[in-house]
Amino acid sequence: MDIATLIGIIVAFGLVGFAIGSGLPSFIDPPSMMIVIGGTVGVLLVGYPLAKCIGVIGVVMKTFMYKLDAGADVIAKLVELAQTVRKDGILALESEVGSIENQFMSKGLQMAIDGQEPTAIEDILYMEMDKISERHSVGADMFTALGTYAPSMGMIGTLVGLVLMLQNMSDPSSIGPSMSIALLTTFYGALMANILFLPMAGKLKTRSKEELLIHEIILVGIQSLVAGENPRVMEQKLLGYLPPKERKSSFD
Amino acid sequence: MDIATLIGIIVAFGLVGFAIGSGLPSFIDPPSMMIVIGGTVGVLLVGYPLAKCIGVIGVVMKTFMYKLDAGADVIAKLVELAQTVRKDGILALESEVGSIENQFMSKGLQMAIDGQEPTAIEDILYMEMDKISERHSVGADMFTALGTYAPSMGMIGTLVGLVLMLQNMSDPSSIGPSMSIALLTTFYGALMANILFLPMAGKLKTRSKEELLIHEIILVGIQSLVAGENPRVMEQKLLGYLPPKERKSSFD
Amino acid sequence: MDIATLIGIIVAFGLVGFAIGSGLPSFIDPPSMMIVIGGTVGVLLVGYPLAKCIGVIGVVMKTFMYKLDAGADVIAKLVELAQTVRKDGILALESEVGSIENQFMSKGLQMAIDGQEPTAIEDILYMEMDKISERHSVGADMFTALGTYAPSMGMIGTLVGLVLMLQNMSDPSSIGPSMSIALLTTFYGALMANILFLPMAGKLKTRSKEELLIHEIILVGIQSLVAGENPRVMEQKLLGYLPPKERKSSFD
Amino acid sequence: MDIATLIGIIVAFGLVGFAIGSGLPSFIDPPSMMIVIGGTVGVLLVGYPLAKCIGVIGVVMKTFMYKLDAGADVIAKLVELAQTVRKDGILALESEVGSIENQFMSKGLQMAIDGQEPTAIEDILYMEMDKISERHSVGADMFTALGTYAPSMGMIGTLVGLVLMLQNMSDPSSIGPSMSIALLTTFYGALMANILFLPMAGKLKTRSKEELLIHEIILVGIQSLVAGENPRVMEQKLLGYLPPKERKSSFD
Amino acid sequence: MDIATLIGIIVAFGLVGFAIGSGLPSFIDPPSMMIVIGGTVGVLLVGYPLAKCIGVIGVVMKTFMYKLDAGADVIAKLVELAQTVRKDGILALESEVGSIENQFMSKGLQMAIDGQEPTAIEDILYMEMDKISERHSVGADMFTALGTYAPSMGMIGTLVGLVLMLQNMSDPSSIGPSMSIALLTTFYGALMANILFLPMAGKLKTRSKEELLIHEIILVGIQSLVAGENPRVMEQKLLGYLPPKERKSSFD
Repeated sequence: MDIATLIGIIVAFGLVGFAIGSGLPSFIDPPSMMIVIGGTVGVLLVGYPLAKCIGVIGVVMKTFMYKLDAGADVIAKLVELAQTVRKDGILALESEVGSIENQFMSKGLQMAIDGQEPTAIEDILYMEMDKISERHSVGADMFTALGTYAPSMGMIGTLVGLVLMLQNMSDPSSIGPSMSIALLTTFYGALMANILFLPMAGKLKTRSKEELLIHEIILVGIQSLVAGENPRVMEQKLLGYLPPKERKSSFD
Repeated sequence: MDIATLIGIIVAFGLVGFAIGSGLPSFIDPPSMMIVIGGTVGVLLVGYPLAKCIGVIGVVMKTFMYKLDAGADVIAKLVELAQTVRKDGILALESEVGSIENQFMSKGLQMAIDGQEPTAIEDILYMEMDKISERHSVGADMFTALGTYAPSMGMIGTLVGLVLMLQNMSDPSSIGPSMSIALLTTFYGALMANILFLPMAGKLKTRSKEELLIHEIILVGIQSLVAGENPRVMEQKLLGYLPPKERKSSFD
Repeated sequence: MDIATLIGIIVAFGLVGFAIGSGLPSFIDPPSMMIVIGGTVGVLLVGYPLAKCIGVIGVVMKTFMYKLDAGADVIAKLVELAQTVRKDGILALESEVGSIENQFMSKGLQMAIDGQEPTAIEDILYMEMDKISERHSVGADMFTALGTYAPSMGMIGTLVGLVLMLQNMSDPSSIGPSMSIALLTTFYGALMANILFLPMAGKLKTRSKEELLIHEIILVGIQSLVAGENPRVMEQKLLGYLPPKERKSSFD
Repeated sequence: MDIATLIGIIVAFGLVGFAIGSGLPSFIDPPSMMIVIGGTVGVLLVGYPLAKCIGVIGVVMKTFMYKLDAGADVIAKLVELAQTVRKDGILALESEVGSIENQFMSKGLQMAIDGQEPTAIEDILYMEMDKISERHSVGADMFTALGTYAPSMGMIGTLVGLVLMLQNMSDPSSIGPSMSIALLTTFYGALMANILFLPMAGKLKTRSKEELLIHEIILVGIQSLVAGENPRVMEQKLLGYLPPKERKSSFD
Repeated sequence: MDIATLIGIIVAFGLVGFAIGSGLPSFIDPPSMMIVIGGTVGVLLVGYPLAKCIGVIGVVMKTFMYKLDAGADVIAKLVELAQTVRKDGILALESEVGSIENQFMSKGLQMAIDGQEPTAIEDILYMEMDKISERHSVGADMFTALGTYAPSMGMIGTLVGLVLMLQNMSDPSSIGPSMSIALLTTFYGALMANILFLPMAGKLKTRSKEELLIHEIILVGIQSLVAGENPRVMEQKLLGYLPPKERKSSFD
């Protein structure tokens, strides 16, 4: 799991809790919570198809738990495969494909072994990459949307509270507490949007970019492999995708 | 119909109503409603041509009710057609075209049967896809616009209420209620924008993307069919457009 | 004229006036009007070249009054011309060109009659389309800018009013009216931006898109005509630019 | 000089001054000015390299004073040169180049005279155009940035004033004046951003577009000239870049 | 080091400190600082992978300290190398490559010496440029994100303070100070975002653009060198990347 997400959420909520201190009970108001949380869920249903709303939890889980292959390992694997191909021909990969966990890589290699045209392999892999990144971006979009829905519902809740309070100002001593309750929905909306939804949307985008980079490396590697390029040349090309610190040659 | 939209609207409005509780009568102020709803309609007329303003209801209805073909079914149909073409030639499709409900698919097939050039078929279908997506995006644009017009009219109404109230502050006990009425237009504008217009614009965009994806599948399928590609290869290509879970081969 | 704009403005301002009711005199404050309207004009002069500021009224008038050719009529005309060309050759258009009102179409046809290369005709028409759309977008840009300048000047006016009021709070009974006057500039700015400038910018953009579509149809039609395509094929291609409801064949 | 800028600034500031009237002394507070003006300069130094911060005044001066060639004159000149080339060959331009003030045009012509390849001339001129427009856009970017820094510093100043005031509320009569001073920084920030920085950024962008258009005309003209195109054809092509009203043929 | 950043920060904070004057102690509230600073760090952890959060300090240091080669020097070096190649052939660069500090330049030259195809050199260098600029933009993105997280945490802190204050309004004399403390978190957030994070994001972007320009010059220079172009032609091409003032020919 991505431990930073958990630590960050604990730190941020912890500090808010610390600032609240012994006043905590006045910050817990179930009806206010219902209007913000429930309302945000309702608006999400208006804004996205049912299937995607239900899938949102799964998508998030999968994305945060997803263990991404390290770029250097992927390159080392590709170089190793290229050496096999050089020695024993492309069909020698047949026995290797089964043990490759990365679905994108095994699909590309399988097509190469099946003797499909290099351009056809390219087209299909590019298209698949494209569609994967589109599907990922829906997740990030939904979190960005949640990050605007939650404060909106918070503001609506505060407006409700203000109107109710202003209708009934005969008892001056009740103004303060009424106002404080009215503000709670804005507070909940701000917490949810700024500590959870918006930064999580950011992390989903970063993850998606990282995965895309790995796919790009695999795609270029398979092109090179099918073209029968020298494994050293191929490695030099692929290492350019990594930051200098992470570059590690299999030939040193 | 898209049931999620209805459920979402009911949940969100229901929770707001629940938060208001017995104070409901003070939240209903017909003049305030008129300024926000009527004003928003007025501004829509300034911002969009008359024909589009009138058509907005129809467009929305059609979009929300529109039953989209499932990607897997479309691919299965295309593969079936490709097999027919392989066996009996392209003219064998003549008898099939009539029974195809999807207008976009039947138009493309008709052109193929008529013996038009593959590039001409491509050009016309691409252009049609382009124009359909442009027309769809006008609907989403209008809802996004409504989502900015409504809060603006709400703010204008609140300014009117504030100025009137400030002019006449001789009776302190009337300040609260006057202020609360002034806030109602802001409240209406926020409700309309955040629960209806903006999320609906989001759903229209998602729908449009989904329909575009189906069209893309059909276009690529017809290209493949005209080129006489092997149905298995064609299916492999087309399944790449779907998320892994929805992929289902006709050959298994 | 575009009647919707007029109706929309009357409806929106009418409803605001109705909400104000008998309080109208307190909403008319000439100095506040001067700071918002005059200031907005001043800022427009800072932001755009003099010639464009002066031309803004003309551009708007022209755009709102401009009678756009219906797409179906343009296509019918092009098909008719294509039939003439098929029968009597391209030079037969010579006598027709004079009676064509649409400048863009007559320019393209004249070049075709003059025997210019198809690619040269394309280049020149594309470039002209490009420049027309650039000039149009300046109009929309200026209205969008006015829509941000007006509320800014409104806010500046309100700040002036607030500072003056706060300097002189000895008489509590004058606070309300002073505050209400301070708010008037914000009110004026909001009215101008949200009922006039921003939606008008939207309509200018829609108009520009509609005109561009007509130009695109003309361009493709002339290409087809010069290439000597079958008028039926040409019509089929061009009708794809229109929404299904507006498509009407000359051959039925 | 661009007189509209000066007039606009005088009108806008004049109207604000008029609205302030005899209350002017309370609007002048040197410490508040320092925090907004000085702070904005400080933040500009954080946001842009030293050389560009120093150069900002020069860039602005140059851009506002810069006398742009009229499009029609540039076209007339190019047509004249094309006629010379037609009559006496490209080398005949040698004597003319020296008297051409526009650096971009003389550079392009010099390369043509030197006998460089048409594609090389194109590449170099395009690249130069690209870099000029990049350098121009930095100026507009800096003014847009100043337009966000100034209100931010204004808000920070107001927060300082509010905190100081709230700490010391024993004397109710001092609350109004303290609050009014706190608002002054927001007022200064709003004035600077909305009357100076943001509209000036807009004008810089318009200027840059106008200059780019002139460069585009020159580039296309030189291409045409090198290709030995008929001067009439060349003029027809170039006039398409101008709005219909400004088009004027040298052959009438 | 980039001295402007330091000066700017000192000026801006100094002026804020000056405006605060003797009231400084009331502006220092450790719990408020903790919620804003700690919370911002926490949210950064939610929004970015752990490795990038840890690396942010290093990246910033490196970027601000990084001494960029002057464009004119890079061009002079490339011209010198081109002359060597003209005289003694490409292999003569072997002895020079070791002494070139710029990694990007030495990598490109090494590939040229190794006799790789010009298109291969281009592809690899373009790709590397692309990846460098992507990595740089992550730094700017993180600072922009920090610039939105800090004010959000400030607002959350202020909401906490307001709710606590409103719950307990029995002692009117404590309202002012409580309110002032509540505002402090907003103040801290505004300071951090507007004086540090957002302008720093701007400088990172400018730096990245400058570095990219140098890389572009090197890439074009090496292409020219490999193609055996005349050093004078090469210089003319490269100088076009610099503003006119910085252009300096090695041949004068």
